[in-house]
Amino acid sequence: MLNHFCKQPLWECTRTLAAVAQGQVPADTVITNARLVNVCTAEIQDDIAVAIACGRIAYVGPSADHCIGEGTRVIDAAGATIAPGFLDGHIHVESSMLGAGEYARAVVPHGTVGIYWDPHEVCNVLGLEGVKVMMDDAARTPLKAMVTTPSCVPAVPGFEDTGSFVGPEEIAESMTWDGVVGLGEMMNFPGVLAGADHAHGELAETLAADKVITGHYSIPETDRGLNAYVACGVRCCHESTRAEDVLAKMRLGQYAQLRYGSAWLDLPQLAAAITETGIDTRFANLISDDTHPHTLVAEGHLDYILRMAVSLGIPVVAAIQMMTINTATCFRMEHELGSITPGKCADIVFLDNLKDLNVVRTMIDGDVVAENGACTFDLAPFDYPDWVTHSMHLGRAITPDTFRVEAPAGASDGDRVTVRAIELLPGSVPDREASVALAVRDGALESDLDQDVLKTFVFERHHETGTYGVGFTKGFGIKRGAMASTVAHDAHNLLVVGTNDEDMALAANTLAEVGGGMVVVADGEVLGLVELPIAGLMDALTAEEMSAKVHHLEDTWAEIGCTMPSPFMTMALIPLACLPELRLTNRGLVDCTTFQFTDLVVDGE
Amino acid sequence: MLNHFCKQPLWECTRTLAAVAQGQVPADTVITNARLVNVCTAEIQDDIAVAIACGRIAYVGPSADHCIGEGTRVIDAAGATIAPGFLDGHIHVESSMLGAGEYARAVVPHGTVGIYWDPHEVCNVLGLEGVKVMMDDAARTPLKAMVTTPSCVPAVPGFEDTGSFVGPEEIAESMTWDGVVGLGEMMNFPGVLAGADHAHGELAETLAADKVITGHYSIPETDRGLNAYVACGVRCCHESTRAEDVLAKMRLGQYAQLRYGSAWLDLPQLAAAITETGIDTRFANLISDDTHPHTLVAEGHLDYILRMAVSLGIPVVAAIQMMTINTATCFRMEHELGSITPGKCADIVFLDNLKDLNVVRTMIDGDVVAENGACTFDLAPFDYPDWVTHSMHLGRAITPDTFRVEAPAGASDGDRVTVRAIELLPGSVPDREASVALAVRDGALESDLDQDVLKTFVFERHHETGTYGVGFTKGFGIKRGAMASTVAHDAHNLLVVGTNDEDMALAANTLAEVGGGMVVVADGEVLGLVELPIAGLMDALTAEEMSAKVHHLEDTWAEIGCTMPSPFMTMALIPLACLPELRLTNRGLVDCTTFQFTDLVVDGE
Repeated sequence: MLNHFCKQPLWECTRTLAAVAQGQVPADTVITNARLVNVCTAEIQDDIAVAIACGRIAYVGPSADHCIGEGTRVIDAAGATIAPGFLDGHIHVESSMLGAGEYARAVVPHGTVGIYWDPHEVCNVLGLEGVKVMMDDAARTPLKAMVTTPSCVPAVPGFEDTGSFVGPEEIAESMTWDGVVGLGEMMNFPGVLAGADHAHGELAETLAADKVITGHYSIPETDRGLNAYVACGVRCCHESTRAEDVLAKMRLGQYAQLRYGSAWLDLPQLAAAITETGIDTRFANLISDDTHPHTLVAEGHLDYILRMAVSLGIPVVAAIQMMTINTATCFRMEHELGSITPGKCADIVFLDNLKDLNVVRTMIDGDVVAENGACTFDLAPFDYPDWVTHSMHLGRAITPDTFRVEAPAGASDGDRVTVRAIELLPGSVPDREASVALAVRDGALESDLDQDVLKTFVFERHHETGTYGVGFTKGFGIKRGAMASTVAHDAHNLLVVGTNDEDMALAANTLAEVGGGMVVVADGEVLGLVELPIAGLMDALTAEEMSAKVHHLEDTWAEIGCTMPSPFMTMALIPLACLPELRLTNRGLVDCTTFQFTDLVVDGE
Repeated sequence: MLNHFCKQPLWECTRTLAAVAQGQVPADTVITNARLVNVCTAEIQDDIAVAIACGRIAYVGPSADHCIGEGTRVIDAAGATIAPGFLDGHIHVESSMLGAGEYARAVVPHGTVGIYWDPHEVCNVLGLEGVKVMMDDAARTPLKAMVTTPSCVPAVPGFEDTGSFVGPEEIAESMTWDGVVGLGEMMNFPGVLAGADHAHGELAETLAADKVITGHYSIPETDRGLNAYVACGVRCCHESTRAEDVLAKMRLGQYAQLRYGSAWLDLPQLAAAITETGIDTRFANLISDDTHPHTLVAEGHLDYILRMAVSLGIPVVAAIQMMTINTATCFRMEHELGSITPGKCADIVFLDNLKDLNVVRTMIDGDVVAENGACTFDLAPFDYPDWVTHSMHLGRAITPDTFRVEAPAGASDGDRVTVRAIELLPGSVPDREASVALAVRDGALESDLDQDVLKTFVFERHHETGTYGVGFTKGFGIKRGAMASTVAHDAHNLLVVGTNDEDMALAANTLAEVGGGMVVVADGEVLGLVELPIAGLMDALTAEEMSAKVHHLEDTWAEIGCTMPSPFMTMALIPLACLPELRLTNRGLVDCTTFQFTDLVVDGE
């Protein structure tokens, strides 16, 4: 497809590039004395020079001295290794809790030059208009923020209220936008397999627009279902958890996107598909999916994943192919991106060497955009519109009384009532439905700290419907206080969990006031708060600032007794009604094995 | 790019494919018990079944029994090997001398399912309207005849008269045609390197239309010039004659199309680039360029090239990738073609085994189109329009007197006059400029059989300009008679070579009468004639019929004394003014090293 992420379209600069390559016109920039990772032939070539003009590569060869003239910037690579800039084939910027501009500043020094971004979270809150704002945010930076339009908004229609709706018509409209390169992860694979109109309508609009469908096939079935899914044109999938999933997908000509995100650490389980088979790796990608600010600050981005891949035995050149040319080919953009070859965008990373794999310089469209870990570009100011930073539309007052859970009719104080509780499993995405007997007090059901069971509420916050769902969660381990978050997949309604109604109300109202975020309160006091005013999901902080704030919040979480690692991540999945077994949305408790609403109180009580 | 070569666009059949894959709707066809060449992973998989619907692959896996229902055609592969249908990345159908429909019938039984066709020859004669007719001719068959619009018509502007002209505007127009996938070989690489408006205008129109530029870079320079050429977006090139050319192109991210045509037997010189390097072969293709009817009948098409590649040591799976998925990727169509994976067009070849590599069945879009060497499809009748079959527009009478070559003023009978002669080098595309002293007889210069020097004329035949060029050719070895041809690259004017004026006139007039072709005459008699009424280049015969006719013509050529192999092929290059050293067009003798017209008589005489 046409590449709108370049300094100048190729058809406007063929004459210049030809002249530069032949030394008739000076290059803008020349790199000398480099070791080249050639992702086309999977070779490492020594003593390579590169000449650049119009933001594109004009020459790659033994010497570009003939391309140097007055005004040419010469970069002596001094034996450093150059590779194509890294491309992340599947990423949700929102997981970083950073605005798109700040996200770019965080990843570019790590060698990331382009992301295939599914802005699924912001779209759930603010719709495609919100996506457009985020694209404008990203456009302040050199990072190529290539968007795949979210396909599943809401994720589980009929079971929750989101801020917006995306269907085939919206997909068709978005496919005409310059920055959109495909369809975001089609999580509704059951709908695809069942022939659902909504899903197939979206697939059809994407295919007819000649764009790429990205996938999400998260079950360990690799025969009939996977075939059906791939046959619908789904080009890639990042939901492999076993090496055999990866192999099955690659054999069916689907790009297997080996994931190593902050929370989804699949890569070690997947690498054997590459290291133990000797297969052609052209259908493998390395991607992050979700990267949290801590990871960005402490480890990096794709450079970190590259180091992990190599440590697992994937040959370094193959691993680099898996985040450059393979990724570009997946999106049918490898004629523009993903290799250091003539005509391509001059997106180049400089690595200290091929062992340590530290990125020392990043170049995008021929400009040095980061050096030694820091961006060299200025970030123009960006004013998020009011409707983006004011996304809390609760339409109701929340008081301690709001959190009263009436006992079922006929139950008296001291009786025990069995309820369905969402039992969190540490380190696991699925949860479990637990049966918990709660004592009735003052005609109501309360959190039971002895059993580690907490009241859990989800308030609709997009359309002022005033609706909310009520449930109980088991497993957080906290002993006092409450916490709330507007990062609550995928509708991102207001989620509140707590030991007592007063703290729960304080937590909820604190977020309502600041426009969303994550908060920990105890004993009528706010202990920790991460404000996320951008759609209730992000803030325009640097990664370091955000990481520090989240670290502080995690400390306060521990202060009230939680021993879970990154508890907000686990908490954020409580409303995600496409995952087994039991989830809570603003509309109520959802049995996610039968996809039906279910009662809080177990039948027969 | 969108694929217009399928039974049904994918977006219309995703529901059906998903249902078939899961056994909910019966497949149209199921293949059982096959060995699969998996070009995605470069593996060979045993015991594979494939289910097909809507002309596309719905399922690939261990068993497709669940896809079999009433009406499903079951093909028991009985252990035969299936591979993706072969794609020829660069071919001129006209070289076969067959109409496009008959060409398809000749190649499909050899496993060819698609060709990337540069109809350069017919375009030179009949323009893009003629190309359209040929596309209609091809469309009668299941062969995917994907056109790259000829870029260099005329090949050497200003030095010859062709039947048509193609420039940036024509390119832009053709890019809107469904059957056009790119720009035909940009032979004018000097123009590209020099920044010429015509060449760069064509490149720009192709790139802006998001189509693929195919190349022709025929010099052994692989540094500055090749970089300049590749930087202009030229995606592939079939003009490598050394392994190092192949390597240089692949390293620069250009598809190196390793050629093994009927006349240009480069592959054996090129294979070392693959066999001796261990490089990633994704940027290598195997192609034919020009295939003559003899080769089609005696050897085959891409199957023949595949066998040759394997015999040269290229691993069989890699060689198959080089004519399937790599080729499709070159044209950015690998999401639709080139692999046996779900969603793709069901274009499949059945090979007896991976040693002999004989094609026993060809399937296109799910239909069996050839079995055991014969096509199974009917060829609907095709009426070539009159203007296609009547392309001889000489605008002048040709008599024996026409061939009188006046001696220079002042030369008397018996004097010797030194002329520039085109010296043919057997088995070589370049020729040599020879100086030959000819005796003056009756005030004229004549053919000199002792020196093997023959009068040579090229008559403009497109616009009735009545112009012609005069020269002498050395090296044919004939002792009597004359021959003429309208296959005379690239303008395809009427070329006549002979020992005497009467036979030359007879040869010329015979072709004028039959609408073009190739003829051998002697002593006032037509010895052999291949009529080529379609643009003076082709006839609607079968490959067998055409081969037999050409064989007979070659016999008559030998009868008049020529010992050259396939002499018409060498003869056809006499007017090709983009090749060194000396050529003859209808406008005169061209010095192809300086690109200037030159005099017949050497200065100072």
